[in-house]
Amino acid sequence: MSTPINRSWQMSGFGLSRLSQVEGKVPEPGPHDLLVRTKAVSLNYKDKMIVDGVLIPDLAFPFVPTSDAVGEVVAVGSAVSRFQVGQRVLGQVIADWPDGDAPPVLHKHTLGSSLSGMLSDHVIFGEDAAVLAPPSLGDIEAATLPIAALTAWFAMAEATKPVPGQTILIQGTGGVSLFALQFATAFGLRAIVTSSSDEKLERARKLGAWQGINYRTQPAWDDAARELTNGLGVSHVLEMVGGDNARRSLNALAADGRLSIIGLLGAMELSFPILPFMRNRITVQGLSIGHRRAFERMNQAIEALAIKPVIDKVFGFDEVPQALQHLEKGPFGKIVITTT
Amino acid sequence: MSTPINRSWQMSGFGLSRLSQVEGKVPEPGPHDLLVRTKAVSLNYKDKMIVDGVLIPDLAFPFVPTSDAVGEVVAVGSAVSRFQVGQRVLGQVIADWPDGDAPPVLHKHTLGSSLSGMLSDHVIFGEDAAVLAPPSLGDIEAATLPIAALTAWFAMAEATKPVPGQTILIQGTGGVSLFALQFATAFGLRAIVTSSSDEKLERARKLGAWQGINYRTQPAWDDAARELTNGLGVSHVLEMVGGDNARRSLNALAADGRLSIIGLLGAMELSFPILPFMRNRITVQGLSIGHRRAFERMNQAIEALAIKPVIDKVFGFDEVPQALQHLEKGPFGKIVITTT
Amino acid sequence: MSTPINRSWQMSGFGLSRLSQVEGKVPEPGPHDLLVRTKAVSLNYKDKMIVDGVLIPDLAFPFVPTSDAVGEVVAVGSAVSRFQVGQRVLGQVIADWPDGDAPPVLHKHTLGSSLSGMLSDHVIFGEDAAVLAPPSLGDIEAATLPIAALTAWFAMAEATKPVPGQTILIQGTGGVSLFALQFATAFGLRAIVTSSSDEKLERARKLGAWQGINYRTQPAWDDAARELTNGLGVSHVLEMVGGDNARRSLNALAADGRLSIIGLLGAMELSFPILPFMRNRITVQGLSIGHRRAFERMNQAIEALAIKPVIDKVFGFDEVPQALQHLEKGPFGKIVITTT
Amino acid sequence: MSTPINRSWQMSGFGLSRLSQVEGKVPEPGPHDLLVRTKAVSLNYKDKMIVDGVLIPDLAFPFVPTSDAVGEVVAVGSAVSRFQVGQRVLGQVIADWPDGDAPPVLHKHTLGSSLSGMLSDHVIFGEDAAVLAPPSLGDIEAATLPIAALTAWFAMAEATKPVPGQTILIQGTGGVSLFALQFATAFGLRAIVTSSSDEKLERARKLGAWQGINYRTQPAWDDAARELTNGLGVSHVLEMVGGDNARRSLNALAADGRLSIIGLLGAMELSFPILPFMRNRITVQGLSIGHRRAFERMNQAIEALAIKPVIDKVFGFDEVPQALQHLEKGPFGKIVITTT
Repeated sequence: MSTPINRSWQMSGFGLSRLSQVEGKVPEPGPHDLLVRTKAVSLNYKDKMIVDGVLIPDLAFPFVPTSDAVGEVVAVGSAVSRFQVGQRVLGQVIADWPDGDAPPVLHKHTLGSSLSGMLSDHVIFGEDAAVLAPPSLGDIEAATLPIAALTAWFAMAEATKPVPGQTILIQGTGGVSLFALQFATAFGLRAIVTSSSDEKLERARKLGAWQGINYRTQPAWDDAARELTNGLGVSHVLEMVGGDNARRSLNALAADGRLSIIGLLGAMELSFPILPFMRNRITVQGLSIGHRRAFERMNQAIEALAIKPVIDKVFGFDEVPQALQHLEKGPFGKIVITTT
Repeated sequence: MSTPINRSWQMSGFGLSRLSQVEGKVPEPGPHDLLVRTKAVSLNYKDKMIVDGVLIPDLAFPFVPTSDAVGEVVAVGSAVSRFQVGQRVLGQVIADWPDGDAPPVLHKHTLGSSLSGMLSDHVIFGEDAAVLAPPSLGDIEAATLPIAALTAWFAMAEATKPVPGQTILIQGTGGVSLFALQFATAFGLRAIVTSSSDEKLERARKLGAWQGINYRTQPAWDDAARELTNGLGVSHVLEMVGGDNARRSLNALAADGRLSIIGLLGAMELSFPILPFMRNRITVQGLSIGHRRAFERMNQAIEALAIKPVIDKVFGFDEVPQALQHLEKGPFGKIVITTT
Repeated sequence: MSTPINRSWQMSGFGLSRLSQVEGKVPEPGPHDLLVRTKAVSLNYKDKMIVDGVLIPDLAFPFVPTSDAVGEVVAVGSAVSRFQVGQRVLGQVIADWPDGDAPPVLHKHTLGSSLSGMLSDHVIFGEDAAVLAPPSLGDIEAATLPIAALTAWFAMAEATKPVPGQTILIQGTGGVSLFALQFATAFGLRAIVTSSSDEKLERARKLGAWQGINYRTQPAWDDAARELTNGLGVSHVLEMVGGDNARRSLNALAADGRLSIIGLLGAMELSFPILPFMRNRITVQGLSIGHRRAFERMNQAIEALAIKPVIDKVFGFDEVPQALQHLEKGPFGKIVITTT
Repeated sequence: MSTPINRSWQMSGFGLSRLSQVEGKVPEPGPHDLLVRTKAVSLNYKDKMIVDGVLIPDLAFPFVPTSDAVGEVVAVGSAVSRFQVGQRVLGQVIADWPDGDAPPVLHKHTLGSSLSGMLSDHVIFGEDAAVLAPPSLGDIEAATLPIAALTAWFAMAEATKPVPGQTILIQGTGGVSLFALQFATAFGLRAIVTSSSDEKLERARKLGAWQGINYRTQPAWDDAARELTNGLGVSHVLEMVGGDNARRSLNALAADGRLSIIGLLGAMELSFPILPFMRNRITVQGLSIGHRRAFERMNQAIEALAIKPVIDKVFGFDEVPQALQHLEKGPFGKIVITTT
């Protein structure tokens, strides 16, 4: 039913030098499982942090990294009822979070973290932890959705209700940020994008950004954002950095504003003054990707809104180390590896 | 229609020594106003901070402090339709917040802050900024509700939905905390109370606390709270202090937990690690008392639940300075001044 | 302060023949009131029902009908702080509903119903019952918003959360329905419009309708809608008719579907089978325009989404009877009367 | 691992006469399944309707009826991680509804309906479709929860937010109604119970009912309910009957009131006037038991609130026909069959 050999990129220890291609057996799906021939895998910054040993210091080796894949169902377990052979699917990264509240113990069943990752010819998804890929997207595009798009979607459309005309501040132009920008544009939000590059801000404007702030030339980007909103502040900030940056984020917020913590590219600490926090009734929420039902709703929205993921660069299956290194260069959009 | 003389406690500058009793004219109600003969006034810790010049450094003098009063309507403006002479009312402290979202510019119309306070024989309430006092409470009890009870109620019953059996951690045994404890008990929540005094913890248990933690003998009260919940953490923490204390609050929280910032008795800063914040999808929300509709709902609940405010001590109208000083002693419940 | 004469259309009894133009005094604003020189007034079907004596049989005469007006503030009361002379404003129709839950006793303060209507040169708005008109709209366009647009907005964006890609069924092509269609298009919803006219369906498609159903040629439009959604049914139906039509609406709904009752052009009864209602966990909600905060949010959205109200026909101030009669002709969009 | 024989009550056709005890093999759990030795099974009125052929006319025989059971896990599949042998569990009746929105196609995996029922010594639960039984309840009590308690809980605590002091009208004194009454009492709601029996109303009062209305002596119970609430109407009505009864329910509702359709003991139709429905912004919602996460929350609440289910009568495993007949007698609370 499937090829006898399963190529994978496997970590035998931390560091790029200990990541190598190996061949193994194609796994057998259990009664409720899907066997999936992967087509494309996208990278997230945390994949580099895992390979480097920064994020999960107690990882058990060997370990196949990365979390986001699209592929074709090539076999199904005997009890599977949600999918059929031939369908194109995406894996639900937090596999035990179907809807509603998250599981009480976190990341016990998370792809590319507590569970094995996606850098293989063949992978297994539980049938309750997969969704159909949007038909309007090609494989390379679809592979970008499981973490980056769902994180932006969950912060903007599930954890809160976007109201057209409201302002949102989006930090940077990486994978999550550009999905956030595309959703913001589709929702009628006025998006303010920050970047250290005027060229990237210009590209962001073409994607629909209402305003751009170069935080290199305007380090007090919080004050700049406040000015752009006639002193009222922005309704929602997507925090990607942490540390002092989060302090500015808070300062940029309007009354009843919301700060969604969805990235930690910089510091590991968050700190802010308490008095304006209370007076303005600020909400700060930490987020962690999202549930399967949100993934399904998002895919439906991506179809209806004709959103096309922004791809920075595509690599071949043999170029995984180069792809991971490219993550450090501040890509504009997503990095994808084809697996066929 | 009313006595010609209106006694007030007025600040001519900062400090207790510049707070003195004066006599003035009884104010005239405008078309939409109520003239109210006060019966009792309750104190909040922020009243001391205002008198001392800590909270509002640019206060204009003379100024009548305090925000919470109960009284009888003795005259109404020509256009008033919501109230009649003879009714017993409480003032809505954030006077321009009837329901839903708060006004975009904050505290433009707040009693005892941007508006004059309550330490007078007679005060004016807009008819849209008053509610009926609960009939089950006497004047001294009713006077305690406008800030302390509404703050606890809003954090526990409006900004979120209490689910019986969930855990809540309440810091201290001051006015807000004891209302929180009484609501928690009535809602079927398991309340963990922290205090530096075993005697106060014992009194808290009599009010329904499920567990008490003495943070003097157990400085790592966050770990203690986690142990009491079998390692899961508590669902909701009411933060009264700030600073390092908030750090412990965050550490005590369960997945999808909520930290409501409702007081700042200690530090003016909030700081915490970002990674567990994201992993556990924590929500931190700053709160600022509540709206008038919530006040009405709370009063209805206080009736139905037969809740009686905990009074620490009652002072006469001539004892205002002593009452303010008593605030520093860590009262168990509310301090009230009678004004008749 | 203002011109001495105030022209109005006044009912001295029921029926078009008893509606006539009169001249009176320009009203005086109270301390919290705005005096507004009207520019344009839009009609709603209920205005015809009121003039005909169908909707409010116990109306007190003389009575100035209609509820929706835009105008310029020409004077303000002494206590007004929310508006200034020269601003262009719209009246909040349910004047005592600022935000959150509606007032417990309904329509005690509703323009053109319990309060006097808008067919006058000058009208009075309480400052808490007015909003700024969207700058992107001319007077004729802005006058259409207070009932028709806010009703559609409230049903689609306040009482629920629109998710792009979801289906919505909109009945007819009158004022409310076309606003609903424009919002649906802007929200990324797939709108199915029903009409008895292929020509109107074609115009609806140009406004963004995903599908049209001619209920004259396809009386079982519920089955047709179900087919268009691959048998799943639609997520939301805006009910404009009542009676047997509502029965079909219910049958067209998907699991967890929502039926918003926003019009009653036809029958005065609603009836449906209870078993599918429970199995599919259907929600039916009656709606009644919306609150002022929603009006403000909607206006902000109309700006951001560049929505232009669809105007069927504009009449002069002397043509009020003709305008009311035109309502019966099944207009495509709104009917407006200029008042200058 | 388990006894070789599995006793069951099986329908070979419709009617009590075709329900008989049979012996079969103990089923084998799949990798994600639990094998459960049942201890007690509770009946719901719909079980009688299924046996009689009224509710599911196209049922396939043989069929084991009933949906609610408590039992002990006696074996687990190889992949099970949520439960262990020896734990006491309850089955989640809508087996494929873990949280959030319900599955789009309804009742494809519902115990005692599309799936086999509970009247057996041994049954199989998927590990994702079971919850721990509350330790505070004995087997007979715990068996009553899966449909009756969860239906009441979902309508009162999940689909809406109960506010202490609000009124709720509960129809009758059957299983769902008495759970509703117990929850209402614990939530601080003012419960109005209707019944045709003064004696049952008296028992309801002992369980916490605020008021009782005998609808035999007061057929206009809607007017009676309105009077009890000073003309305002009740906030929430739990509809158990349908038809004209629902019409009265609607008439008893306050502004912004809610009608939860949770039973259909009487007519199969719902009908009401549309004008008050819109004016009062009524919400009518059909409900269908609830999801697993709600079941877990409810069990936690039952522990915290010390709620003890009201048992009308307990039958032995050999008395199933008598137990089903007893359903017709209007029991006060639940009917349970012991299976050991």
